[in-house]
Amino acid sequence: MILHSHLDTNEQGHLTIGGMDTVALAKEFGTPAYIMDEAAIRARFRTYLTAARTHFGENALPAFASKALCFTEIYRIAAEEGLGIDCVSGGELYTAKRASFPAERIYFHGNNKTDADLKQALDMGVGTIVVDNADELLALDALASNAGKTQRILLRITPGIDPHTHRAIRTGNVDSKFGNAIVTGGAMEITKLALSLSNVRLVGFHCHVGSQIFDLSPFRDAADIMMRYIADVKRETGFVTEELNLGGGLAARYTEVDATVDYADAIAKIAAIVRNKAQEMDVAMPRVILEPGRSLVAEAGITLYTVGGVKEIPGFKNYISVDGGMPDNPRYALYQSEYTALIANRAADPADYRATVAGRCCESGDLIGEDMPIQRASRGDILAVLTTGAYNYSMASNYNRLPRPPVILVRDGVARVAVRRESFEDLVRNDV
Amino acid sequence: MILHSHLDTNEQGHLTIGGMDTVALAKEFGTPAYIMDEAAIRARFRTYLTAARTHFGENALPAFASKALCFTEIYRIAAEEGLGIDCVSGGELYTAKRASFPAERIYFHGNNKTDADLKQALDMGVGTIVVDNADELLALDALASNAGKTQRILLRITPGIDPHTHRAIRTGNVDSKFGNAIVTGGAMEITKLALSLSNVRLVGFHCHVGSQIFDLSPFRDAADIMMRYIADVKRETGFVTEELNLGGGLAARYTEVDATVDYADAIAKIAAIVRNKAQEMDVAMPRVILEPGRSLVAEAGITLYTVGGVKEIPGFKNYISVDGGMPDNPRYALYQSEYTALIANRAADPADYRATVAGRCCESGDLIGEDMPIQRASRGDILAVLTTGAYNYSMASNYNRLPRPPVILVRDGVARVAVRRESFEDLVRNDV
Repeated sequence: MILHSHLDTNEQGHLTIGGMDTVALAKEFGTPAYIMDEAAIRARFRTYLTAARTHFGENALPAFASKALCFTEIYRIAAEEGLGIDCVSGGELYTAKRASFPAERIYFHGNNKTDADLKQALDMGVGTIVVDNADELLALDALASNAGKTQRILLRITPGIDPHTHRAIRTGNVDSKFGNAIVTGGAMEITKLALSLSNVRLVGFHCHVGSQIFDLSPFRDAADIMMRYIADVKRETGFVTEELNLGGGLAARYTEVDATVDYADAIAKIAAIVRNKAQEMDVAMPRVILEPGRSLVAEAGITLYTVGGVKEIPGFKNYISVDGGMPDNPRYALYQSEYTALIANRAADPADYRATVAGRCCESGDLIGEDMPIQRASRGDILAVLTTGAYNYSMASNYNRLPRPPVILVRDGVARVAVRRESFEDLVRNDV
Repeated sequence: MILHSHLDTNEQGHLTIGGMDTVALAKEFGTPAYIMDEAAIRARFRTYLTAARTHFGENALPAFASKALCFTEIYRIAAEEGLGIDCVSGGELYTAKRASFPAERIYFHGNNKTDADLKQALDMGVGTIVVDNADELLALDALASNAGKTQRILLRITPGIDPHTHRAIRTGNVDSKFGNAIVTGGAMEITKLALSLSNVRLVGFHCHVGSQIFDLSPFRDAADIMMRYIADVKRETGFVTEELNLGGGLAARYTEVDATVDYADAIAKIAAIVRNKAQEMDVAMPRVILEPGRSLVAEAGITLYTVGGVKEIPGFKNYISVDGGMPDNPRYALYQSEYTALIANRAADPADYRATVAGRCCESGDLIGEDMPIQRASRGDILAVLTTGAYNYSMASNYNRLPRPPVILVRDGVARVAVRRESFEDLVRNDV
């Protein structure tokens, strides 16, 4: 096992994923390529679903936060496994429709839904729209009225919690572009507004405390604040909350330093916290929705690159250049996120070299990681970066006009293409 | 004039670009949309070409660094105006071919060119390949030999200069993934290697001191170091440098705080510096290539968005949400780059409000700028962000499955589509 249970080495010393030789995969599909272990994805989906049903109740639903990874086949897999999905744009809704994803299990999110988005969601029969603000609420009510519908909604509430994670991925703070803060009175105001409208049916609330969280205390704080809020709403308006969406946030393992999260155990603990708080505040336990994104898919994915060369600068760094970089993985450039890398064709060798893994873009900041422990490399080697299943493909660009890599799913010794590699023709398709 | 001479307001108080009403453009082409003033682009191209020929000599050539902005039509414009281009990938070369760009005026760059890239460049008859490292040099020599060709090359040299700019866009330092440092002996080593090979013809050297530079001292330092190096090479090997490529780096104006750069004057001053240094070191003045990117196109472009709503959080910030964000402009998320924004349909009003302009992605870090002076806004207003002509379209992603905006060129009162808006169908085109 290398970092994750689906990664290992074979007798040739090559890195394997789901038992398949990554060097052979690189040869078959070319590089750069995203390779994902479908069995690992499905297993994690099941872990979440089983734990949610066991600990929160049979009607609990994990909804995959598809901003982490969106393409048609991942929605088909989520549908088969019985999960819901969280969509944030017309493009995600369109993809879900293409995958024949059951619309009633879709949660439609976003701090700024356009009228076109709302109409698309109404037309598709999206189960639940998570309304962010009063402008949107009024627009939705009017559009639903025009369509002769009553739309099931949640309201996005900002509990005001700092989950001690990277600033860019803290979304539960009061100072946020998302939702309505409890402390400012904004939450109660929009709740009353929602209750006063005829073409939306308020069923409950959504909160999200952040991302890549290892410690459960933000969930404890959120449960405390949200249950207190639910009790306040009941007292002030008589509204009984049917559904509470706790958002996402559990961490994935990027390096050996990161703890291994026991997701079933974490869900059991969060459920116990929520139940206790409900009892403490004397409110009925609502149906609970979870929105994991990263923790469902990040660990299942790796990226394979071909090494172009190694540059050793005496007194400074060693650079290993690969045939991808910030266009296929912008997370180091954006957040200085740490990754584990290894030379796939010498994965059993000790990682006794240190190098900065550099992408191929004309930009100094185009790095995958700095000063990483790794095996020695030379031109033609295959370099693997681990835990790239989330926020890599979904954030990928064509910067430097590099085509985006394919997404390959491996399962039971078979590799299949879920997303084809972009062609040069694709790059100029919309050029006049 | 608003920040740039091609931006103004009309009698309705609307922002205009090249004399055209941006509110009307938003209505015609939808939002988000990149709008560029073609006359401003062509004028800047001419300023560079004229100044380079006047001050460096008739054979001087500005080569547009197309990583800043790449699509077919911009290459056609560069070709018409007599510029060269700097390409960094097979995708850019493919686009240049589609635009029938004269191959002899192409400089092919990059720290990690694959064998496939090198073959493509040889097949296309690319004028000059800027070789980054020894691995690539040997690979190119072999491929050129197979093709029965002798390829004109420059070698990328790292002069070792800190241009006092943002770390991610400093590329002249010794500790860089690019090129070969003079101080470590790497530069002389690869120079001798190049001179020993039969299928490459070394004509000179390339250096790049950084990006978004207002102060000319890094160019002074670079000229000093490069001329000294050229003299050293002549003494040690007898090689007479025919061509010196000084890279890019002159700044664009993003906010009122930024100085207005007089590009013709800057080029005159850089030319005087280079001439003096050549004389001082007693080397023949080489042909000079410049590689401006940002300074050719950034100021010509604006992005138009529709406002989705305004959120005022007492004691914290005011958020204006727009229908784009980090997918079409990742520069704030990446570099905390500053921009100027205004409400296009009230552009003549005082910017007496302050707001954080937030994108529509499910990510707190998805901002265009924080605490920006701007006019008051409400749902449905058109918000313009200025100076987005460089590193916006070229770095754009489909994060959150948002389609990329179109690029619209305006000229002489006519607006035409240079890049069409992506469709939802485009987003799933490669999905299986």
